[in-house]
Amino acid sequence: MRYELFYWPSIQGRGEFVRLALEAAGADYVDVARERGRGLGVEAMLRLMEGPEPQRPPFAPPFLRAGRLLIAQTANILQYLAPRLGLVPKAEAARLWAHQLQLTLADWLVEIHDTHHPIGKSLYYEDQKPEAARRAQNFLELRLPKFLGYFERLLAAVPAEPRLVGPECSYPDLSLFHMIEGLRYAFPRAMLRLAPASPHVLALCDQVAAIPRIAAYLASPRRIPFNDGGIFRHYPELDP
Amino acid sequence: MRYELFYWPSIQGRGEFVRLALEAAGADYVDVARERGRGLGVEAMLRLMEGPEPQRPPFAPPFLRAGRLLIAQTANILQYLAPRLGLVPKAEAARLWAHQLQLTLADWLVEIHDTHHPIGKSLYYEDQKPEAARRAQNFLELRLPKFLGYFERLLAAVPAEPRLVGPECSYPDLSLFHMIEGLRYAFPRAMLRLAPASPHVLALCDQVAAIPRIAAYLASPRRIPFNDGGIFRHYPELDP
Repeated sequence: MRYELFYWPSIQGRGEFVRLALEAAGADYVDVARERGRGLGVEAMLRLMEGPEPQRPPFAPPFLRAGRLLIAQTANILQYLAPRLGLVPKAEAARLWAHQLQLTLADWLVEIHDTHHPIGKSLYYEDQKPEAARRAQNFLELRLPKFLGYFERLLAAVPAEPRLVGPECSYPDLSLFHMIEGLRYAFPRAMLRLAPASPHVLALCDQVAAIPRIAAYLASPRRIPFNDGGIFRHYPELDP
Repeated sequence: MRYELFYWPSIQGRGEFVRLALEAAGADYVDVARERGRGLGVEAMLRLMEGPEPQRPPFAPPFLRAGRLLIAQTANILQYLAPRLGLVPKAEAARLWAHQLQLTLADWLVEIHDTHHPIGKSLYYEDQKPEAARRAQNFLELRLPKFLGYFERLLAAVPAEPRLVGPECSYPDLSLFHMIEGLRYAFPRAMLRLAPASPHVLALCDQVAAIPRIAAYLASPRRIPFNDGGIFRHYPELDP
Protein backbone atom coordinates (compact mmCIF):
# COMPACT_ATOMS: atom_id res chain seq x y z
CA MET A 1 0.00 0.00 0.00
CA ARG A 2 1.31 3.43 -0.95
CA TYR A 3 0.18 5.97 1.63
CA GLU A 4 -0.38 9.61 0.73
CA LEU A 5 0.36 12.11 3.48
CA PHE A 6 -1.17 15.57 3.17
CA TYR A 7 0.46 18.32 5.18
CA TRP A 8 1.85 21.83 4.78
CA PRO A 9 5.09 21.62 2.83
CA SER A 10 7.27 24.13 4.67
CA ILE A 11 7.01 23.04 8.32
CA GLN A 12 7.39 19.87 10.33
CA GLY A 13 4.26 20.62 12.33
CA ARG A 14 1.92 17.80 13.26
CA GLY A 15 2.78 16.01 10.03
CA GLU A 16 6.20 15.18 11.44
CA PHE A 17 4.78 12.66 13.89
CA VAL A 18 3.27 10.77 10.98
CA ARG A 19 6.42 11.09 8.86
CA LEU A 20 8.53 9.61 11.66
CA ALA A 21 6.26 6.57 11.89
CA LEU A 22 6.27 6.03 8.13
CA GLU A 23 10.04 6.48 7.97
CA ALA A 24 10.76 4.21 10.94
CA ALA A 25 8.86 1.43 9.23
CA GLY A 26 10.31 2.05 5.78
CA ALA A 27 6.76 2.49 4.49
CA ASP A 28 5.96 3.45 0.92
CA TYR A 29 4.50 6.95 1.08
CA VAL A 30 4.19 10.23 -0.79
CA ASP A 31 4.38 13.54 1.02
CA VAL A 32 1.90 15.02 -1.42
CA ALA A 33 2.28 18.75 -0.87
CA ARG A 34 6.06 18.48 -1.10
CA GLU A 35 6.59 15.94 -3.84
CA ARG A 36 4.02 17.12 -6.35
CA GLY A 37 5.39 20.63 -6.32
CA ARG A 38 4.12 22.97 -3.67
CA GLY A 39 1.37 24.70 -5.57
CA LEU A 40 -0.25 21.56 -6.94
CA GLY A 41 0.14 19.53 -3.78
CA VAL A 42 -1.24 22.20 -1.44
CA GLU A 43 -4.09 22.77 -3.86
CA ALA A 44 -4.95 19.06 -3.80
CA MET A 45 -4.84 19.16 -0.01
CA LEU A 46 -7.13 22.16 0.29
CA ARG A 47 -9.55 20.66 -2.22
CA LEU A 48 -9.91 17.60 -0.01
CA MET A 49 -10.72 19.84 2.97
CA GLU A 50 -12.95 22.37 1.30
CA GLY A 51 -14.36 20.84 -1.85
CA PRO A 52 -17.62 18.91 -2.17
CA GLU A 53 -15.70 15.62 -2.04
CA PRO A 54 -14.90 13.68 0.11
CA GLN A 55 -17.99 12.82 2.10
CA ARG A 56 -15.98 13.00 5.31
CA PRO A 57 -13.74 16.06 4.98
CA PRO A 58 -10.93 16.70 7.47
CA PHE A 59 -11.06 19.84 9.59
CA ALA A 60 -7.31 20.41 9.19
CA PRO A 61 -4.10 18.72 8.02
CA PRO A 62 -2.39 16.35 8.50
CA PHE A 63 -4.43 13.65 6.87
CA LEU A 64 -3.58 10.39 5.23
CA ARG A 65 -5.02 8.63 2.23
CA ALA A 66 -4.85 4.87 2.63
CA GLY A 67 -6.71 3.24 -0.23
CA ARG A 68 -10.29 4.43 0.04
CA LEU A 69 -9.84 5.82 3.55
CA LEU A 70 -9.06 9.45 4.25
CA ILE A 71 -7.97 9.75 7.89
CA ALA A 72 -7.30 12.96 9.80
CA GLN A 73 -6.10 13.88 13.28
CA THR A 74 -2.50 12.96 14.02
CA ALA A 75 -3.20 10.51 16.83
CA ASN A 76 -5.95 8.86 14.81
CA ILE A 77 -3.63 8.44 11.82
CA LEU A 78 -0.93 6.94 14.02
CA GLN A 79 -3.37 4.59 15.68
CA TYR A 80 -4.46 3.40 12.25
CA LEU A 81 -0.93 3.02 10.89
CA ALA A 82 0.82 1.54 13.92
CA PRO A 83 -0.48 -2.06 13.72
CA ARG A 84 0.19 -2.06 9.97
CA LEU A 85 3.72 -0.74 10.41
CA GLY A 86 4.67 -2.88 13.42
CA LEU A 87 4.81 0.14 15.72
CA VAL A 88 2.54 -1.08 18.51
CA PRO A 89 2.06 -4.42 20.28
CA LYS A 90 -1.00 -6.56 19.53
CA ALA A 91 -2.65 -6.63 22.97
CA GLU A 92 -5.63 -4.31 23.45
CA ALA A 93 -4.27 -3.00 26.75
CA ALA A 94 -0.99 -1.99 25.08
CA ARG A 95 -2.82 -0.27 22.23
CA LEU A 96 -5.04 1.70 24.57
CA TRP A 97 -1.97 2.71 26.55
CA ALA A 98 -0.08 3.76 23.42
CA HIS A 99 -2.99 5.90 22.26
CA GLN A 100 -3.42 7.38 25.72
CA LEU A 101 0.23 8.44 25.69
CA GLN A 102 -0.06 9.84 22.18
CA LEU A 103 -3.04 11.96 23.24
CA THR A 104 -1.09 13.19 26.26
CA LEU A 105 1.74 14.18 23.92
CA ALA A 106 -0.83 15.98 21.75
CA ASP A 107 -2.03 17.97 24.78
CA TRP A 108 1.54 18.88 25.59
CA LEU A 109 2.13 19.97 21.98
CA VAL A 110 -0.76 22.45 22.10
CA GLU A 111 0.75 24.01 25.21
CA ILE A 112 4.11 24.33 23.45
CA HIS A 113 2.49 25.98 20.43
CA ASP A 114 0.62 28.39 22.62
CA THR A 115 3.79 29.67 24.30
CA HIS A 116 4.33 31.77 21.15
CA HIS A 117 0.65 32.08 20.17
CA PRO A 118 -1.35 32.52 23.39
CA ILE A 119 -3.90 34.91 21.85
CA GLY A 120 -4.64 33.55 18.41
CA LYS A 121 -3.30 31.52 15.51
CA SER A 122 -4.47 34.25 13.14
CA LEU A 123 -2.04 36.80 14.62
CA TYR A 124 1.72 37.01 14.24
CA TYR A 125 3.96 36.29 17.21
CA GLU A 126 4.95 39.96 17.04
CA ASP A 127 1.35 40.86 17.80
CA GLN A 128 1.28 38.86 21.04
CA LYS A 129 4.76 39.15 22.49
CA PRO A 130 3.93 40.33 26.02
CA GLU A 131 1.29 37.61 26.37
CA ALA A 132 3.70 35.05 24.93
CA ALA A 133 6.33 36.02 27.48
CA ARG A 134 3.89 35.42 30.34
CA ARG A 135 2.61 32.15 28.91
CA ALA A 136 6.09 30.84 28.16
CA GLN A 137 7.23 31.64 31.69
CA ASN A 138 4.28 29.74 33.14
CA PHE A 139 4.95 26.85 30.75
CA LEU A 140 8.66 26.60 31.60
CA GLU A 141 8.08 26.87 35.35
CA LEU A 142 5.17 24.49 35.73
CA ARG A 143 4.00 22.63 32.68
CA LEU A 144 7.27 21.58 31.07
CA PRO A 145 8.61 19.98 34.27
CA LYS A 146 5.24 18.32 34.84
CA PHE A 147 5.03 16.68 31.40
CA LEU A 148 8.71 15.84 31.29
CA GLY A 149 8.57 14.42 34.81
CA TYR A 150 5.62 12.24 33.87
CA PHE A 151 7.42 10.62 30.95
CA GLU A 152 10.62 10.30 32.96
CA ARG A 153 8.72 8.49 35.69
CA LEU A 154 7.18 6.09 33.18
CA LEU A 155 10.51 5.29 31.55
CA ALA A 156 12.38 5.01 34.85
CA ALA A 157 9.94 2.27 35.87
CA VAL A 158 10.80 0.12 32.83
CA PRO A 159 13.35 -2.51 33.85
CA ALA A 160 15.00 -2.94 30.43
CA GLU A 161 15.58 -0.45 27.59
CA PRO A 162 13.58 2.78 27.95
CA ARG A 163 10.41 2.19 25.92
CA LEU A 164 6.94 3.57 26.58
CA VAL A 165 4.96 0.57 25.32
CA GLY A 166 6.29 -2.98 25.29
CA PRO A 167 9.87 -4.00 24.61
CA GLU A 168 10.09 -2.67 21.01
CA CYS A 169 10.02 0.86 19.69
CA SER A 170 6.41 2.04 19.34
CA TYR A 171 4.85 5.16 17.87
CA PRO A 172 4.73 7.09 21.17
CA ASP A 173 8.50 6.54 21.49
CA LEU A 174 8.99 8.18 18.10
CA SER A 175 6.66 11.02 19.05
CA LEU A 176 8.34 11.60 22.41
CA PHE A 177 11.67 11.76 20.58
CA HIS A 178 10.27 14.48 18.34
CA MET A 179 8.83 16.42 21.28
CA ILE A 180 12.22 16.47 22.97
CA GLU A 181 14.03 17.43 19.77
CA GLY A 182 11.58 20.27 19.29
CA LEU A 183 11.84 21.43 22.88
CA ARG A 184 15.62 21.43 22.68
CA TYR A 185 15.37 23.60 19.58
CA ALA A 186 12.80 25.98 21.06
CA PHE A 187 13.96 26.16 24.67
CA PRO A 188 17.62 25.09 24.75
CA ARG A 189 18.33 26.77 28.07
CA ALA A 190 15.33 25.36 29.89
CA MET A 191 15.99 21.89 28.49
CA LEU A 192 19.60 22.03 29.64
CA ARG A 193 18.42 22.84 33.16
CA LEU A 194 15.97 19.93 33.10
CA ALA A 195 18.36 17.40 31.55
CA PRO A 196 19.77 16.06 34.86
CA ALA A 197 16.23 15.17 35.96
CA SER A 198 15.37 13.45 32.66
CA PRO A 199 18.01 10.76 32.02
CA HIS A 200 15.62 8.07 30.82
CA VAL A 201 13.77 10.39 28.46
CA LEU A 202 17.06 11.52 26.96
CA ALA A 203 18.31 7.93 26.67
CA LEU A 204 15.18 7.01 24.75
CA CYS A 205 15.76 9.96 22.41
CA ASP A 206 19.33 8.89 21.74
CA GLN A 207 18.15 5.40 20.94
CA VAL A 208 15.44 6.59 18.57
CA ALA A 209 17.89 8.90 16.79
CA ALA A 210 20.19 5.91 16.29
CA ILE A 211 17.57 3.67 14.62
CA PRO A 212 19.12 3.29 11.15
CA ARG A 213 16.02 4.34 9.21
CA ILE A 214 15.44 7.32 11.52
CA ALA A 215 19.09 8.37 11.31
CA ALA A 216 18.90 8.15 7.52
CA TYR A 217 15.69 10.17 7.46
CA LEU A 218 17.05 12.88 9.75
CA ALA A 219 20.07 13.27 7.47
CA SER A 220 17.97 13.33 4.28
CA PRO A 221 16.36 16.25 2.45
CA ARG A 222 12.98 14.73 3.37
CA ARG A 223 13.50 16.08 6.89
CA ILE A 224 12.39 19.72 7.02
CA PRO A 225 14.64 21.68 9.40
CA PHE A 226 13.10 23.25 12.48
CA ASN A 227 12.09 26.81 11.62
CA ASP A 228 10.12 29.70 13.00
CA GLY A 229 6.97 28.89 11.08
CA GLY A 230 6.41 25.65 12.94
CA ILE A 231 5.09 24.56 16.31
CA PHE A 232 8.53 24.55 17.94
CA ARG A 233 10.00 28.03 17.56
CA HIS A 234 13.16 29.43 19.01
CA TYR A 235 12.56 32.93 20.33
CA PRO A 236 15.45 33.56 22.76
CA GLU A 237 13.37 36.02 24.79
CA LEU A 238 10.96 33.17 25.69
CA ASP A 239 13.81 31.00 27.03
CA PRO A 240 15.72 33.29 29.40
CA MET B 1 -19.48 -4.81 33.64
CA ARG B 2 -19.57 -2.00 36.20
CA TYR B 3 -17.42 0.86 35.01
CA GLU B 4 -15.69 3.21 37.42
CA LEU B 5 -15.27 6.78 36.24
CA PHE B 6 -12.67 8.93 37.96
CA TYR B 7 -13.06 12.67 37.61
CA TRP B 8 -13.16 15.83 39.70
CA PRO B 9 -16.45 15.89 41.62
CA SER B 10 -17.44 19.56 41.34
CA ILE B 11 -17.25 20.24 37.60
CA GLN B 12 -18.53 18.71 34.39
CA GLY B 13 -15.17 19.17 32.69
CA ARG B 14 -13.89 16.48 30.36
CA GLY B 15 -15.60 13.83 32.48
CA GLU B 16 -18.97 15.00 31.16
CA PHE B 17 -18.29 13.57 27.69
CA VAL B 18 -17.81 10.16 29.27
CA ARG B 19 -20.82 10.55 31.56
CA LEU B 20 -23.06 11.36 28.59
CA ALA B 21 -21.98 8.20 26.77
CA LEU B 22 -22.50 6.03 29.85
CA GLU B 23 -25.89 7.64 30.53
CA ALA B 24 -27.08 7.41 26.91
CA ALA B 25 -26.44 3.69 26.98
CA GLY B 26 -27.86 3.11 30.44
CA ALA B 27 -24.51 1.63 31.46
CA ASP B 28 -23.74 0.49 34.98
CA TYR B 29 -21.15 2.91 36.34
CA VAL B 30 -19.90 4.60 39.48
CA ASP B 31 -18.76 8.22 39.41
CA VAL B 32 -16.14 7.44 42.03
CA ALA B 33 -15.15 10.87 43.31
CA ARG B 34 -18.80 11.87 43.73
CA GLU B 35 -20.41 8.72 45.01
CA ARG B 36 -17.83 7.63 47.51
CA GLY B 37 -17.86 11.00 49.23
CA ARG B 38 -15.60 13.68 47.89
CA GLY B 39 -12.62 13.24 50.12
CA LEU B 40 -12.34 9.49 49.74
CA GLY B 41 -13.11 9.42 46.03
CA VAL B 42 -10.70 12.18 45.10
CA GLU B 43 -8.04 10.55 47.24
CA ALA B 44 -8.54 7.26 45.38
CA MET B 45 -8.26 9.12 42.09
CA LEU B 46 -5.06 10.90 43.03
CA ARG B 47 -3.56 7.67 44.34
CA LEU B 48 -4.08 6.07 40.93
CA MET B 49 -2.30 8.98 39.27
CA GLU B 50 0.53 9.52 41.71
CA GLY B 51 1.04 6.31 43.65
CA PRO B 52 3.38 3.45 42.77
CA GLU B 53 0.43 1.50 41.30
CA PRO B 54 -0.83 1.19 38.58
CA GLN B 55 1.94 0.32 36.15
CA ARG B 56 0.42 2.67 33.58
CA PRO B 57 -0.64 5.78 35.48
CA PRO B 58 -2.81 8.43 33.82
CA PHE B 59 -1.40 11.93 33.40
CA ALA B 60 -4.73 13.52 34.34
CA PRO B 61 -8.42 12.72 34.88
CA PRO B 62 -10.81 11.61 33.52
CA PHE B 63 -9.98 7.94 33.55
CA LEU B 64 -12.05 4.81 33.55
CA ARG B 65 -11.58 1.49 35.26
CA ALA B 66 -13.01 -1.34 33.16
CA GLY B 67 -12.10 -4.64 34.79
CA ARG B 68 -8.32 -4.78 34.78
CA LEU B 69 -7.93 -1.87 32.37
CA LEU B 70 -7.35 1.69 33.49
CA ILE B 71 -7.95 3.99 30.51
CA ALA B 72 -7.28 7.73 30.36
CA GLN B 73 -7.78 10.52 27.82
CA THR B 74 -11.40 11.35 27.06
CA ALA B 75 -11.35 10.40 23.39
CA ASN B 76 -9.54 7.16 24.17
CA ILE B 77 -12.11 6.25 26.82
CA LEU B 78 -14.96 6.99 24.43
CA GLN B 79 -13.35 4.99 21.67
CA TYR B 80 -13.06 2.05 24.04
CA LEU B 81 -16.59 2.34 25.38
CA ALA B 82 -18.47 3.13 22.18
CA PRO B 83 -18.55 -0.33 20.57
CA ARG B 84 -19.49 -1.85 23.93
CA LEU B 85 -22.29 0.67 24.48
CA GLY B 86 -23.67 0.65 20.93
CA LEU B 87 -22.53 4.23 20.29
CA VAL B 88 -20.59 3.73 17.06
CA PRO B 89 -21.15 1.64 13.92
CA LYS B 90 -19.11 -1.51 13.33
CA ALA B 91 -17.27 -0.55 10.11
CA GLU B 92 -13.66 0.53 10.48
CA ALA B 93 -14.16 3.60 8.29
CA ALA B 94 -17.01 4.78 10.54
CA ARG B 95 -14.97 4.22 13.68
CA LEU B 96 -12.01 6.15 12.33
CA TRP B 97 -14.35 8.96 11.32
CA ALA B 98 -16.01 9.02 14.73
CA HIS B 99 -12.67 9.22 16.48
CA GLN B 100 -11.42 11.89 14.09
CA LEU B 101 -14.47 14.00 14.93
CA GLN B 102 -14.02 13.40 18.65
CA LEU B 103 -10.41 14.60 18.44
CA THR B 104 -11.53 17.67 16.51
CA LEU B 105 -14.04 18.39 19.28
CA ALA B 106 -11.20 17.96 21.80
CA ASP B 107 -9.12 20.56 19.94
CA TRP B 108 -12.07 22.92 19.97
CA LEU B 109 -12.56 22.34 23.70
CA VAL B 110 -8.99 23.42 24.49
CA GLU B 111 -9.57 26.65 22.60
CA ILE B 112 -12.74 27.27 24.59
CA HIS B 113 -10.93 26.65 27.87
CA ASP B 114 -8.15 28.99 26.89
CA THR B 115 -10.53 31.92 26.28
CA HIS B 116 -10.56 32.35 30.08
CA HIS B 117 -7.12 30.87 30.74
CA PRO B 118 -4.80 32.04 27.94
CA ILE B 119 -1.74 32.39 30.16
CA GLY B 120 -1.82 29.43 32.51
CA LYS B 121 -4.04 26.89 34.24
CA SER B 122 -2.20 27.61 37.49
CA LEU B 123 -3.45 31.22 37.59
CA TYR B 124 -6.90 32.55 38.35
CA TYR B 125 -9.00 34.09 35.61
CA GLU B 126 -8.65 37.35 37.54
CA ASP B 127 -4.90 37.19 36.97
CA GLN B 128 -5.25 37.03 33.17
CA LYS B 129 -8.28 39.16 32.35
CA PRO B 130 -6.78 41.45 29.68
CA GLU B 131 -5.24 38.47 27.89
CA ALA B 132 -8.51 36.56 28.18
CA ALA B 133 -10.39 39.45 26.62
CA ARG B 134 -8.07 39.42 23.62
CA ARG B 135 -8.14 35.67 23.23
CA ALA B 136 -11.93 35.46 23.61
CA GLN B 137 -12.39 38.15 20.98
CA ASN B 138 -10.18 36.23 18.54
CA PHE B 139 -12.03 33.02 19.37
CA LEU B 140 -15.48 34.49 18.85
CA GLU B 141 -14.53 36.23 15.62
CA LEU B 142 -12.61 33.45 13.91
CA ARG B 143 -12.42 30.12 15.65
CA LEU B 144 -16.00 29.67 16.88
CA PRO B 145 -17.52 30.31 13.42
CA LYS B 146 -14.91 28.03 11.86
CA PHE B 147 -15.58 25.05 14.12
CA LEU B 148 -19.33 25.58 14.16
CA GLY B 149 -19.37 26.00 10.38
CA TYR B 150 -17.47 22.75 9.94
CA PHE B 151 -19.96 20.72 11.94
CA GLU B 152 -22.90 22.51 10.30
CA ARG B 153 -21.51 21.63 6.88
CA LEU B 154 -21.13 17.97 7.86
CA LEU B 155 -24.65 17.73 9.23
CA ALA B 156 -26.21 19.68 6.36
CA ALA B 157 -24.80 17.06 3.96
CA VAL B 158 -26.60 14.19 5.74
CA PRO B 159 -29.83 13.42 3.86
CA ALA B 160 -31.81 12.06 6.83
CA GLU B 161 -31.74 12.98 10.53
CA PRO B 162 -28.72 15.08 11.52
CA ARG B 163 -26.14 12.56 12.77
CA LEU B 164 -22.36 12.78 12.50
CA VAL B 165 -21.67 9.05 12.05
CA GLY B 166 -24.16 6.62 10.54
CA PRO B 167 -27.92 6.71 11.02
CA GLU B 168 -27.96 6.21 14.81
CA CYS B 169 -26.78 8.46 17.61
CA SER B 170 -23.03 8.00 18.14
CA TYR B 171 -20.62 9.32 20.73
CA PRO B 172 -19.55 12.37 18.69
CA ASP B 173 -23.23 13.40 18.50
CA LEU B 174 -23.41 13.33 22.29
CA SER B 175 -20.16 15.27 22.56
CA LEU B 176 -21.23 17.89 20.03
CA PHE B 177 -24.44 18.33 22.01
CA HIS B 178 -22.38 19.03 25.11
CA MET B 179 -20.10 21.46 23.29
CA ILE B 180 -23.09 23.48 22.11
CA GLU B 181 -24.73 23.40 25.53
CA GLY B 182 -21.51 24.65 27.05
CA LEU B 183 -21.03 27.35 24.45
CA ARG B 184 -24.60 28.56 24.96
CA TYR B 185 -23.87 28.81 28.68
CA ALA B 186 -20.50 30.55 28.24
CA PHE B 187 -21.21 32.78 25.23
CA PRO B 188 -24.99 33.22 24.99
CA ARG B 189 -24.78 36.38 22.91
CA ALA B 190 -22.32 35.01 20.37
CA MET B 191 -24.26 31.77 20.07
CA LEU B 192 -27.48 33.67 19.46
CA ARG B 193 -25.79 35.54 16.62
CA LEU B 194 -24.52 32.28 15.10
CA ALA B 195 -27.78 30.35 15.52
CA PRO B 196 -29.26 31.27 12.11
CA ALA B 197 -26.18 29.81 10.40
CA SER B 198 -26.26 26.59 12.47
CA PRO B 199 -29.71 25.02 12.01
CA HIS B 200 -28.51 21.44 11.62
CA VAL B 201 -26.19 21.60 14.61
CA LEU B 202 -29.01 22.97 16.75
CA ALA B 203 -31.43 20.35 15.46
CA LEU B 204 -29.01 17.61 16.44
CA CYS B 205 -28.73 19.13 19.92
CA ASP B 206 -32.50 19.21 20.34
CA GLN B 207 -32.68 15.57 19.34
CA VAL B 208 -29.93 14.51 21.72
CA ALA B 209 -31.57 16.42 24.57
CA ALA B 210 -34.81 14.56 23.84
CA ILE B 211 -33.31 11.05 24.05
CA PRO B 212 -35.19 9.69 27.07
CA ARG B 213 -32.09 8.55 28.96
CA ILE B 214 -30.31 11.84 28.27
CA ALA B 215 -33.36 13.88 29.26
CA ALA B 216 -33.60 11.88 32.49
CA TYR B 217 -29.91 12.37 33.19
CA LEU B 218 -30.03 16.12 32.55
CA ALA B 219 -32.92 16.44 35.01
CA SER B 220 -31.21 14.29 37.65
CA PRO B 221 -28.86 15.26 40.49
CA ARG B 222 -26.15 13.27 38.68
CA ARG B 223 -25.86 16.18 36.24
CA ILE B 224 -23.53 18.82 37.70
CA PRO B 225 -24.75 22.30 36.70
CA PHE B 226 -22.48 24.47 34.57
CA ASN B 227 -20.39 26.62 36.89
CA ASP B 228 -17.42 28.92 36.84
CA GLY B 229 -14.91 26.30 37.86
CA GLY B 230 -15.39 24.31 34.67
CA ILE B 231 -14.23 24.52 31.08
CA PHE B 232 -17.29 26.45 29.94
CA ARG B 233 -17.48 29.63 32.01
CA HIS B 234 -19.82 32.55 31.68
CA TYR B 235 -17.92 35.79 32.06
CA PRO B 236 -20.18 38.44 30.47
CA GLU B 237 -17.20 40.66 29.64
CA LEU B 238 -15.87 37.92 27.32
CA ASP B 239 -19.17 37.77 25.39
CA PRO B 240 -19.94 41.39 24.52
